[in-house]
Amino acid sequence: MRGRRRLEDAIIEVARRYGFAEVRTPIFEHTELFTAKSGDDIVAQLYAFEDKSGRSLTLRPELTAPVMRMIATGDLRERPRPVKVCYTGPCFRYEEAKTGRWREFDQFGVEVIGASGSLVEAEVMACAISMLEASGLEGWRFSIGHVGLLHAFLDAAQVPESFTVEQREATIKAGWTSKDHAGAEKDTPRTVLLRMLDKQQMQGAAELMHLLGIKDSFITMLDALDSNTSPEDLENLGEHFGNLGVDTTPIDSLRVTLGHLSSSGAPMDCIDLNLTTARGLDYYTGCVFEARVETLGGEGQVLGGGTYRLLHLFGLEELDPCCGFGYGTDRVLLALEHQGLSTNTSEPRVALIPLNTQSNAVLPMVAALRGSGIAADIEMRQRNLSKSMKWANNAGFTHAVVVGPKEIESGVLSVKDMMSGETSDLTLSDLITQLLN
Amino acid sequence: MRGRRRLEDAIIEVARRYGFAEVRTPIFEHTELFTAKSGDDIVAQLYAFEDKSGRSLTLRPELTAPVMRMIATGDLRERPRPVKVCYTGPCFRYEEAKTGRWREFDQFGVEVIGASGSLVEAEVMACAISMLEASGLEGWRFSIGHVGLLHAFLDAAQVPESFTVEQREATIKAGWTSKDHAGAEKDTPRTVLLRMLDKQQMQGAAELMHLLGIKDSFITMLDALDSNTSPEDLENLGEHFGNLGVDTTPIDSLRVTLGHLSSSGAPMDCIDLNLTTARGLDYYTGCVFEARVETLGGEGQVLGGGTYRLLHLFGLEELDPCCGFGYGTDRVLLALEHQGLSTNTSEPRVALIPLNTQSNAVLPMVAALRGSGIAADIEMRQRNLSKSMKWANNAGFTHAVVVGPKEIESGVLSVKDMMSGETSDLTLSDLITQLLN
Repeated sequence: MRGRRRLEDAIIEVARRYGFAEVRTPIFEHTELFTAKSGDDIVAQLYAFEDKSGRSLTLRPELTAPVMRMIATGDLRERPRPVKVCYTGPCFRYEEAKTGRWREFDQFGVEVIGASGSLVEAEVMACAISMLEASGLEGWRFSIGHVGLLHAFLDAAQVPESFTVEQREATIKAGWTSKDHAGAEKDTPRTVLLRMLDKQQMQGAAELMHLLGIKDSFITMLDALDSNTSPEDLENLGEHFGNLGVDTTPIDSLRVTLGHLSSSGAPMDCIDLNLTTARGLDYYTGCVFEARVETLGGEGQVLGGGTYRLLHLFGLEELDPCCGFGYGTDRVLLALEHQGLSTNTSEPRVALIPLNTQSNAVLPMVAALRGSGIAADIEMRQRNLSKSMKWANNAGFTHAVVVGPKEIESGVLSVKDMMSGETSDLTLSDLITQLLN
Repeated sequence: MRGRRRLEDAIIEVARRYGFAEVRTPIFEHTELFTAKSGDDIVAQLYAFEDKSGRSLTLRPELTAPVMRMIATGDLRERPRPVKVCYTGPCFRYEEAKTGRWREFDQFGVEVIGASGSLVEAEVMACAISMLEASGLEGWRFSIGHVGLLHAFLDAAQVPESFTVEQREATIKAGWTSKDHAGAEKDTPRTVLLRMLDKQQMQGAAELMHLLGIKDSFITMLDALDSNTSPEDLENLGEHFGNLGVDTTPIDSLRVTLGHLSSSGAPMDCIDLNLTTARGLDYYTGCVFEARVETLGGEGQVLGGGTYRLLHLFGLEELDPCCGFGYGTDRVLLALEHQGLSTNTSEPRVALIPLNTQSNAVLPMVAALRGSGIAADIEMRQRNLSKSMKWANNAGFTHAVVVGPKEIESGVLSVKDMMSGETSDLTLSDLITQLLN
């Protein structure tokens, strides 16, 4: 818990420096809030219940929708734009718990509302990167894509709005979509393609584009999309796109964003382009980004976000698009653990053990240590010396001090370092000075 | 929110110094946990619901029972005794919200488990008092009582186990108990008397004792119980009690506790005795304490706790009694607000406004400010100067810096203090130095 609180404090401090004010939203909301954002399918994963007056309430599964609701209905609506908020707290999902995915989990997030564009995207990503740095994580990679660029590509390629009956059957047969989801509304050619690109199933995407009768010149571009992974490649890709008649506005915008990010001092050598990233959720419209830590295994994702449109759901079209990200506190803690980077540093903790003396003579020493910011305890069970020393050792104290009449009289304490086993004679104020340095 | 987080950080820091480790428990628990502790009546005030497999779950109404459950079933069971934990988080009650009593509220608490006695009670109270001090509250009073002392008094007075039919009718008629609660199990002569003492209804208590046929020598003692409010009075009271054949062990214990508290450096002039305090909950057995802030109005209570027996409910009799307290974060924040003590100090926040210059030339300045720990923002909407200055003003920045080509070239910034309206010419590093001092 000390590690968790420290991590939380560290990332909140980064958010403060970046100008984000913390807000807190209720643990439960009306169920409609979450179905409005994510569709009725999400109900199966929700902790939804009825309160005593029959309202359907839900333990929040995520924090973006509640924050949007707060913007739309609450005090935040009156704040000067852009509104920059961060938030953290427990969220809930009704599914089997597994490592790094618990039924109750902490989410941390950041949103810029009421401003958009390259500068906003760069600021949000710079903040995300500063949080990764402040977390003490090692070996993270930050990857950036642009959903608008994928849409421009698919627009120019003239991907049809819907499948023909034959195409749908072939698509189901190939396993690219399921019978349940193959309805025209759910899985259109575009959403299926985006999903395949997001998963880097490039071969499948090429086959599907063939099936859809898309020109070869576009299909061969899939390679370029997949392999252009350094910011320097973007100029090249822009030329290719231009030649094919693809709108290059998103590429130009992405180049500007990357320039801003570099000017902000972000470590560009930890940043990759991943232009096939679509992030799976259809509310993203612009730049999207993710951070991964290899040692986590599985997807390894610890952070993700981008530019999105959600506020129109609350009648606030004029505030779209926004830009923000979620940071997975639980997964970062897990990654830190995997990396053997304990977030619990060995702060001094002193155990004072009265021996043949009144507690009242020892309590002022305890108070002096605490007053100096040092964690201190007095042995409270008045047990014998050997049991008391065992307690000091097992309970993880860094130092133990036995205080008897001699120590009280002389003011010199015999301080045992519990790690080394060594003993030093120190006055209380020397001990304090030493522990604070 | 910044005030709330600061307050939370301040009290968690006090807890750390006192050797309490933070733990976190789930937002919901099995409903039985809370009915086991507080009885079936509590269900009306609970946010209880069934999950999809038909289990009755409840959004926790308080944190003590969950922490006890954690001690009884979790990792904490193996820790060296005493276990010293603190915890905070949202709790829920299903009732009409009113000022300072919301349906979702934050509770903070501290428990010592596996040790008891005067030294434990003094340590816990010293911690509570340090938290009041760290909160920045003014005009708080800390009052201490002892439930064991009241029981010893009622034992010696030979308060009967149950009412006779006539007594019960008279009691209902006098309004001391209601028809619903007058059943022998709910409202016994003892519980009714304790409740009246707790509310300092001394006249009523005397009348009820008459009705119960209790000797006058005990009834006249009610005055002494009510009026002995300074620690020095305890010796006297002990003598009186001794003469009446009342067990004086609790008084002796309370005297020792107060001595420890004084040795710990607690401000004894802010501490009162209130020997009629019973705290309404029947699990308290020893020392009980409360802190009140007058400016809060109503009960004004911001903190309360004592020595209690609860772990026997979890089959851990050997760990009873424990000692702990709850601290009402919401009420403290409200009291601070009433006292005009804003918890939001005016930390510097700098707005940088690019004018006729590239954002990329300004972003390194933003990064330098943030890197030094100063909150800084860049104007992200590229609006004209007058609108940008208006934004900097409305959004509460303490300083605004317009950066144009001249500033970039010379390195000298014109920094506007938004409070005074004054402008100073400073280099970026001078600005940072000035803001950090």
